[in-house]
Amino acid sequence: MTAPYLPPPRLLMGPGPIDADPRVLQAMSSQLIGQFDPSMTACMDLTMASYREVFCTDNQWTFLVNSTSRGAIEASMVSLVEPGDTVLVPIFGRFGYLLKEIASRCGANVETIEVPWGTVFDPQQIADAIRETQPKVLAIVQGDTSTTMLQPLTDIGALCREAGVILYCDATASIGGNALQTDDWGLEVVTVGLQKCLGGPSGSAPITLGEHAVDIIKARRHVEAGIKTQNHREGNGLRIASNYFDLAMIMDYWGPERLNHHTEATSMLYGSLECARILLEEGLDNAIARHELNGRALAEGLLAMNLQLYGDQQNRMNNVVGVYIPEQVNGALVRHDMLHDYGIEIGTSFGPLDGIIWRIGTMGYNARPDAVLKTLACLEQCLISSQHGMQPGAAVAAAKKTYAAAQTS
Amino acid sequence: MTAPYLPPPRLLMGPGPIDADPRVLQAMSSQLIGQFDPSMTACMDLTMASYREVFCTDNQWTFLVNSTSRGAIEASMVSLVEPGDTVLVPIFGRFGYLLKEIASRCGANVETIEVPWGTVFDPQQIADAIRETQPKVLAIVQGDTSTTMLQPLTDIGALCREAGVILYCDATASIGGNALQTDDWGLEVVTVGLQKCLGGPSGSAPITLGEHAVDIIKARRHVEAGIKTQNHREGNGLRIASNYFDLAMIMDYWGPERLNHHTEATSMLYGSLECARILLEEGLDNAIARHELNGRALAEGLLAMNLQLYGDQQNRMNNVVGVYIPEQVNGALVRHDMLHDYGIEIGTSFGPLDGIIWRIGTMGYNARPDAVLKTLACLEQCLISSQHGMQPGAAVAAAKKTYAAAQTS
Repeated sequence: MTAPYLPPPRLLMGPGPIDADPRVLQAMSSQLIGQFDPSMTACMDLTMASYREVFCTDNQWTFLVNSTSRGAIEASMVSLVEPGDTVLVPIFGRFGYLLKEIASRCGANVETIEVPWGTVFDPQQIADAIRETQPKVLAIVQGDTSTTMLQPLTDIGALCREAGVILYCDATASIGGNALQTDDWGLEVVTVGLQKCLGGPSGSAPITLGEHAVDIIKARRHVEAGIKTQNHREGNGLRIASNYFDLAMIMDYWGPERLNHHTEATSMLYGSLECARILLEEGLDNAIARHELNGRALAEGLLAMNLQLYGDQQNRMNNVVGVYIPEQVNGALVRHDMLHDYGIEIGTSFGPLDGIIWRIGTMGYNARPDAVLKTLACLEQCLISSQHGMQPGAAVAAAKKTYAAAQTS
Repeated sequence: MTAPYLPPPRLLMGPGPIDADPRVLQAMSSQLIGQFDPSMTACMDLTMASYREVFCTDNQWTFLVNSTSRGAIEASMVSLVEPGDTVLVPIFGRFGYLLKEIASRCGANVETIEVPWGTVFDPQQIADAIRETQPKVLAIVQGDTSTTMLQPLTDIGALCREAGVILYCDATASIGGNALQTDDWGLEVVTVGLQKCLGGPSGSAPITLGEHAVDIIKARRHVEAGIKTQNHREGNGLRIASNYFDLAMIMDYWGPERLNHHTEATSMLYGSLECARILLEEGLDNAIARHELNGRALAEGLLAMNLQLYGDQQNRMNNVVGVYIPEQVNGALVRHDMLHDYGIEIGTSFGPLDGIIWRIGTMGYNARPDAVLKTLACLEQCLISSQHGMQPGAAVAAAKKTYAAAQTS
């Protein structure tokens, strides 16, 4: 047998995943307990309560889907949407295409509107599209790491409420590092993952469901034949096309009935709870401010290196910065050297931005000055090797100046 | 903020999940690395190679689905089956009903045959059903923990090959503790989970695909719009109805193209690899023999306690024993006392066996004499409290005798 696998030392400054908070890994190393142990169900209830705070919601149905974040997108779509329903997807990056694709596989009639990559929608564009397409569901990403853009959502909930549209939001990449107010903004369904600003590994997907969504899902409730008894009341709606992502069944498992569905991924549950605890101990506002400051320090450093930032900086996510690869620089080589010489990962890009920009993240556990400063210092070395003209030391100085100004303000 | 969640001390002797091997938890506490880091992709390749050995197969396409075990069942069904295809499910317990339900949600025409709970199928019954129903897929559970039965599969593969039927097997509860020969038995697709004899937490589902299954799945290959380029060749088959469980996409992610799909659940990957390493270090035959011995010692101990075993003992899984709750004994109270007085979990049952039998597991890390002996000792105390007549000390003595005989043979 070979030696145990041990990952090499890395600092993950890409668009996620990022280094997990050591407290999360420690929590995940706790021993398992039985899935109906009173302590286990108490842990599940505590996790629900904690994520209500993370999502800023009073929604009772706030729980985990046992998958990576895209599984929770699919669970939402397949549980809400029946074949032929119209879903409107405003697309401003790769993950908008993902929402379109998932909705389409659920049999939805998908309508899309698009803005150029690097920009976001004006609420009026969305209002117009709602009026034209009359969707059952509007599905939108809050922060799309492919473009680093953060879609303002404060007005979209009201638009959807007025039009009787279910507003679904994928906030995987944004939650914890950017404001997200589920109830105040009228977001009906929100799903996320742990591997960005929450500082955990991928593999668990927190979700929150508003009352309207719950009504739709409960109307499609169905109990598995192997465990069904005469006492189980089912809904009259069309059976959900997935068993694993049947939110009505997952709710029966997380709810007081505790009907067996999957076997809850216990280690990921422990990790999910600890992610929420860390965030709530810091305080949501403090965490968002920390992401904003570290993201801004990184951006200032990059600018001081004679690099150009990508996209509308007024609507950039706090936790990831896109930066143009200078024309004479081999972007892949720099990423290679960053990883192999310095142990620092920065991100490449997808589709039309592949080879055009790098994406550098400051999120979760890694939204820290030392992580930002060492990333800038090492990137400077790589750019010097690539003959990119700059003032040595200027990047770190600019970032430090940003931090110093924040301390005195 | 509340104190960190810490699980209470438990010994999990139910039908799974069971205590994770501490080595697995240790592996899962390793720090994350980026999903396309060369060390990460090497870890994925090593995991594929290790699970080929676990499944006893040369199948190239042996990898992980990022879900609990039922997710891999669904991934297999939704990727193999098109609406209207016939799936034959021989049912001998609850998990047969689950296969039926999942296949049905994928739009299959599902045909079933059943035997009474506590028994298994004769190959002739399956041969007859194949002839009558002419299925595209035969889906069967190897070990159904709901009844503790292990379906012999040695002849079924040949039957399916002759009839041109894809043989799918859910071996979640049996693998590692009972023989499973993917290639020798002609199993085309096998899926499992970690939380039984593999000694890990639920949340990762190893899968292996034979060539015929791969052909079917590749014909349905589809590349996500957000990352598709002109070079990507797609299949002509019907698009798979799930994005998350689209095995063609998951193969593109695990294969040399490394096309982004989900973000691999890194901690679960580490844990999955370590589960395989532990099993392969012990050796498959040794591990199966250990499960057989500890399961037998447990059964002998229960018999010596004047308890009656459930089901056909010739076809019982090595790793779980069903035992009738004596008539005058309150089964729920005994389980409560076992958990709260002794910290030992034993299992209740589903559906028709609910309240009729307990299910006691000896699997994975817990297939050990000390775990068996302390379970018997504590169960004896509970049964004495319940006025169940027995010879004090006989259970442990019978189990010890079984162990002693095994040492001298």
